[in-house]
Amino acid sequence: MAIGYPGGKKYTASHEGLPSKKRKTPVTYGKRGMSLEDDLNDTIAYYLAHDIAVIHKKPTPVQIVSVDYPKRSSAKIKEAYFKTPSTTDYNGVYKGKYVDFEAKETQNTTSFPLSNFHDHQMTHMANVLKQDGIVFVIIAFQKLGETHFIPFEKFYPFWERMQSGGRKSVTISEIQDVSDQVPYGLNPRLDFLQSIDKLYF
Amino acid sequence: MAIGYPGGKKYTASHEGLPSKKRKTPVTYGKRGMSLEDDLNDTIAYYLAHDIAVIHKKPTPVQIVSVDYPKRSSAKIKEAYFKTPSTTDYNGVYKGKYVDFEAKETQNTTSFPLSNFHDHQMTHMANVLKQDGIVFVIIAFQKLGETHFIPFEKFYPFWERMQSGGRKSVTISEIQDVSDQVPYGLNPRLDFLQSIDKLYF
Repeated sequence: MAIGYPGGKKYTASHEGLPSKKRKTPVTYGKRGMSLEDDLNDTIAYYLAHDIAVIHKKPTPVQIVSVDYPKRSSAKIKEAYFKTPSTTDYNGVYKGKYVDFEAKETQNTTSFPLSNFHDHQMTHMANVLKQDGIVFVIIAFQKLGETHFIPFEKFYPFWERMQSGGRKSVTISEIQDVSDQVPYGLNPRLDFLQSIDKLYF
Repeated sequence: MAIGYPGGKKYTASHEGLPSKKRKTPVTYGKRGMSLEDDLNDTIAYYLAHDIAVIHKKPTPVQIVSVDYPKRSSAKIKEAYFKTPSTTDYNGVYKGKYVDFEAKETQNTTSFPLSNFHDHQMTHMANVLKQDGIVFVIIAFQKLGETHFIPFEKFYPFWERMQSGGRKSVTISEIQDVSDQVPYGLNPRLDFLQSIDKLYF
């Protein structure tokens, strides 16, 4: 709608006058601007829909302190706190085998900081390995467009190195040496079962 | 310490005078008054501590709406809601194989109401079976002191019967026919891996 200004001059909306929309971050085709979590959720949904594997992300562990029941049907949690996860985020079954992994992304381009992992998670993964499960980490270097599949047994030595006073991160070339790189695809976006087929079957 | 009363009479503490302690609920030796969840948590902790299996209960899924950050370190969830679980409560790894189950207890003595399960859970268990996972339900009849291990493939027909208009529960004798009963023990309390060894290995 045109608004009349004093003096008969009409106001005409121009793009310059409009509130600037928040600019989208530039699209990187290697990564398509999605988070690793989105890529993985999309991928495991694809696996599930096509009867390829049943893998789920675990719910965030929460300590519930107070709950309100306004109606019998709907409970509202009024007070709760995040708990430190004692396991990894993802697990499930593929060809009868137990699959367990943790996924982390970093904006770094030269190394991955080990502070991204909890001690509990490392213990959990070591326990899974003892039970002959397929256990690994997925690390995405978002700015490099590189996603690495690293079997836990090849990742754990970096953790042990830190524990015994060594560096607190893993360099990109160290990761490249022990990983299988997962290419980005359309559907599924991050077909990490290819790495499992290659390395475990 | 003895307290002097007027008239020189000494006050002596007696058990009768002490505030009565909350009476413990009577011990039933069949069940020992524990909930199925307590028994299972105790059992999987035993398995973990003895490197027998790595099985965890999944966190309750919660939809978080509002979080308060009074300090950088501690986040307080102010509003959240329970979500319907899309999977079962327990999963993990035993001898490399994927293990997945749901556990329910009932106070009934003649039948188990199928309304204890969600449709989503049944679909999930059917999916796990297709992936060749070890999948089952554990049903405890608390008043009978009976805990039944039922492979999913033997339990699912009861669900299908209900879906096609049949009865909404499973009678105790139907359950006894298809189940392996898990005896109560001291440590672990509910050694359900015995049933897995018997039925799957």
